[in-house]
Amino acid sequence: MKTRLLALVLCCVFTFNYAQTDETVLKTIYSTSLTNGKSYDWLDHISNNIGGRLSGSTNAELAVQYTKTELEKLGLDKVWLQPVMVPKWVRGEKEMAYFEISGEISKVNICALGGSIATPNGGIKAKVLEVSTYKDLEALGTEKVKGKIVFINRALQTELINTFQAYGGCSTERYRGAAEAAKFGALGTIVRSLSSRQDDYPHTGSMSYGDLPVEKRIPSAAISTNDAVKLSEALKNNSNLEFYFEQSCQQFEDVQSYNVIGEITGSEYPNEFMIVGGHLDSWDLGDGAHDDGAGVVQSMDVIRLLKESGITPKRSIRVVLFMNEENGLRGGRKYAEVAKEKNEKHVFALESDAGGFTPRGFSFDCSDLMFSKVEAWKPLFKPYLIHYFEKGGSGADIGPLKNNDTVLAGLRPDSQRYFDHHHAANDTFEHVNKRELELGAATMTALVFLMDKYGTDTITKTKEIKD
Amino acid sequence: MKTRLLALVLCCVFTFNYAQTDETVLKTIYSTSLTNGKSYDWLDHISNNIGGRLSGSTNAELAVQYTKTELEKLGLDKVWLQPVMVPKWVRGEKEMAYFEISGEISKVNICALGGSIATPNGGIKAKVLEVSTYKDLEALGTEKVKGKIVFINRALQTELINTFQAYGGCSTERYRGAAEAAKFGALGTIVRSLSSRQDDYPHTGSMSYGDLPVEKRIPSAAISTNDAVKLSEALKNNSNLEFYFEQSCQQFEDVQSYNVIGEITGSEYPNEFMIVGGHLDSWDLGDGAHDDGAGVVQSMDVIRLLKESGITPKRSIRVVLFMNEENGLRGGRKYAEVAKEKNEKHVFALESDAGGFTPRGFSFDCSDLMFSKVEAWKPLFKPYLIHYFEKGGSGADIGPLKNNDTVLAGLRPDSQRYFDHHHAANDTFEHVNKRELELGAATMTALVFLMDKYGTDTITKTKEIKD
Repeated sequence: MKTRLLALVLCCVFTFNYAQTDETVLKTIYSTSLTNGKSYDWLDHISNNIGGRLSGSTNAELAVQYTKTELEKLGLDKVWLQPVMVPKWVRGEKEMAYFEISGEISKVNICALGGSIATPNGGIKAKVLEVSTYKDLEALGTEKVKGKIVFINRALQTELINTFQAYGGCSTERYRGAAEAAKFGALGTIVRSLSSRQDDYPHTGSMSYGDLPVEKRIPSAAISTNDAVKLSEALKNNSNLEFYFEQSCQQFEDVQSYNVIGEITGSEYPNEFMIVGGHLDSWDLGDGAHDDGAGVVQSMDVIRLLKESGITPKRSIRVVLFMNEENGLRGGRKYAEVAKEKNEKHVFALESDAGGFTPRGFSFDCSDLMFSKVEAWKPLFKPYLIHYFEKGGSGADIGPLKNNDTVLAGLRPDSQRYFDHHHAANDTFEHVNKRELELGAATMTALVFLMDKYGTDTITKTKEIKD
Repeated sequence: MKTRLLALVLCCVFTFNYAQTDETVLKTIYSTSLTNGKSYDWLDHISNNIGGRLSGSTNAELAVQYTKTELEKLGLDKVWLQPVMVPKWVRGEKEMAYFEISGEISKVNICALGGSIATPNGGIKAKVLEVSTYKDLEALGTEKVKGKIVFINRALQTELINTFQAYGGCSTERYRGAAEAAKFGALGTIVRSLSSRQDDYPHTGSMSYGDLPVEKRIPSAAISTNDAVKLSEALKNNSNLEFYFEQSCQQFEDVQSYNVIGEITGSEYPNEFMIVGGHLDSWDLGDGAHDDGAGVVQSMDVIRLLKESGITPKRSIRVVLFMNEENGLRGGRKYAEVAKEKNEKHVFALESDAGGFTPRGFSFDCSDLMFSKVEAWKPLFKPYLIHYFEKGGSGADIGPLKNNDTVLAGLRPDSQRYFDHHHAANDTFEHVNKRELELGAATMTALVFLMDKYGTDTITKTKEIKD
């Protein structure tokens, strides 16, 4: 009886200490981020002193050099560049577009989609066929489509609480619209911007011609949500109106670029890797502060906050700043490829690529057993209003690491404002709130700390006890 | 055995239907708010066509008339104005301030605190005594304080997750600072703005002289956080620097104003009242979009969304737009006073006065038993990421209704950005996100629906079954 009582008491003491310690560490992490974080200053530099960082651009290379230098200042065990060839697409002159009814011209705001070809010199002018999805084209057929500019006017579903779900429901229109319309002889495509807001900003993003031969490709642009409504209304009154657009974008040969990597080598399991990252490249219209400057600087601060909070990780923790998420994912693929070649065991990867907004939690791509382990940490996060722990999705850059042994996770910030700014000229530094950004960095650090401390094994690891 | 099985099956069916119905109603409420909400349009008008609405101002009266007219359009059972006398304080000319070292002038951004007296004509110029809290004055005494301008430089604690807690920790400095400094012969007080951000905006807010005789009162102003740092640093190098400020604000006689009230009369318990509200008045520097235009339009939309969602409330639901929360709380007091006079039974009151940001949940002022009842509704709110249900505080305007029979609650939006804008010139419409505002209106409507449906009794009400 006495033995059982002692066991019970010991168990209580153990549980109590265990909980207290983690609570204290998380408090230190959050306080340090909010009172002595570096993420906001780094983002200021990346956004305002460098700016938009499209793969293959001078700005992208400036961001590589800057972040490498800043990581070197942190006194990590290793900092290096991982070479990767990336596509180089250049927007060229500012695009121009209008529609014309009986000689009266209404200007509209467009931008070329990333990967699109240019219009012929002097632009394209043609009648417009409005569809609500590219899937309508099959039924309309060549007869209706040929010689027209196809206007894909699909709005995000505003009633969805998760704006990423609303975005996902429309993103194929942007990605495949031109390739599909070209099959039926369209001259070009104009796609409604994938924005949650009614405003005048066109939102760019990647598109692909798939296996369409070069000579069949047609130019594709995004139109602002306000102008999509305006154009659609004008078409209701006059289906014969003519639309004009001109863009001079161009695809060049691939160029050399880099992922930027920093590492704290693990004290107990140096050959087990946990990575935290975001993507260094961005679209060119804004300064890419939310997408994904925020993820870059938060990831950098994770590794710094671990050090500042006096945490000595058992496993090797890497910050990985990926190149070319936006239009190729070459950085993410390269990192996974090299990891495989070197037989590096990656046990955990966390990405922040959903904006620098107030963090709400994480999504996980892992086994049910591992997810139960993670869910047990929820009470630790409650004081920080971190409540969202769900299975489903992580991040594009870490996706190529997916296998049964690697736990993948994505930071999930509040999503309501993200698609107001995503891929548009208003994705800029002043729309990032310092505290929200810092809370994200702290939340990521806390998860990395717990993953390292308790490991990702779901069968408890037993270490030999040495005298 | 068969009977028990049947009972079990019936119980399951009942539970299932019960849950399904509420889930469906909440889905309708949220969808309606996000696709067909009115809150954002109303806020646009209140912010941009009317603007700042300080009690006793022409704008405050325009807001009374506008919201009354808009409520009348909703086809409620009753809409009326409830007269209330309110204080009238007027800022006058834009304030001016600088500090001077050896003839070199550094301008700083200040604004008079609400309720402050003016400086004498030509302003005040004096040496500065910096303190971190008014509590330091007692120890310093008249000798050190007399003839000085007291600079209370207390920064919000950035490590606190809840920014309202950080604000609460400093708000007494603003409210009582001048009265305390005057006791020791100070000529004026300059209080660091209660802002979460480092920027150039001074933040106003109410202050009080308490029972200090009129002739002993001294002028008080807020200084921007950037200028507080600048002044503090300058004082370190030159404690003899002179500070100058001038303000011409003035307190007038009380004037007539109104609370605006709309009601859907209850179908079963018309004499039980549930109210939802925000405050119509605002400070004068910005347009009061977050504080509390957001709460006003969300409350108006609650009563509209109930109708739009086909809900017939059993109890009488009132929207109450309170006047004079900012510098007197006369509207809140008047409403409670009249309710008491008329012996109106108020069972529930909900206030939104924490900004139009993404809603996170509610705080409750109620019994433990009632709180348990509310907590059981948490799963219904999960799809909308509403997770915060805690006891503690509701809203200033509904506070006077507090008694053992009334459940009080406050909407709790994300608080990270609130004190960037609070009482400052940048509390403006463009800083309110449409979706975030609409989610708040829906969240409030959902709670009102559930409170009405299930009542606030904690001992289950049994109705006689009639044949």
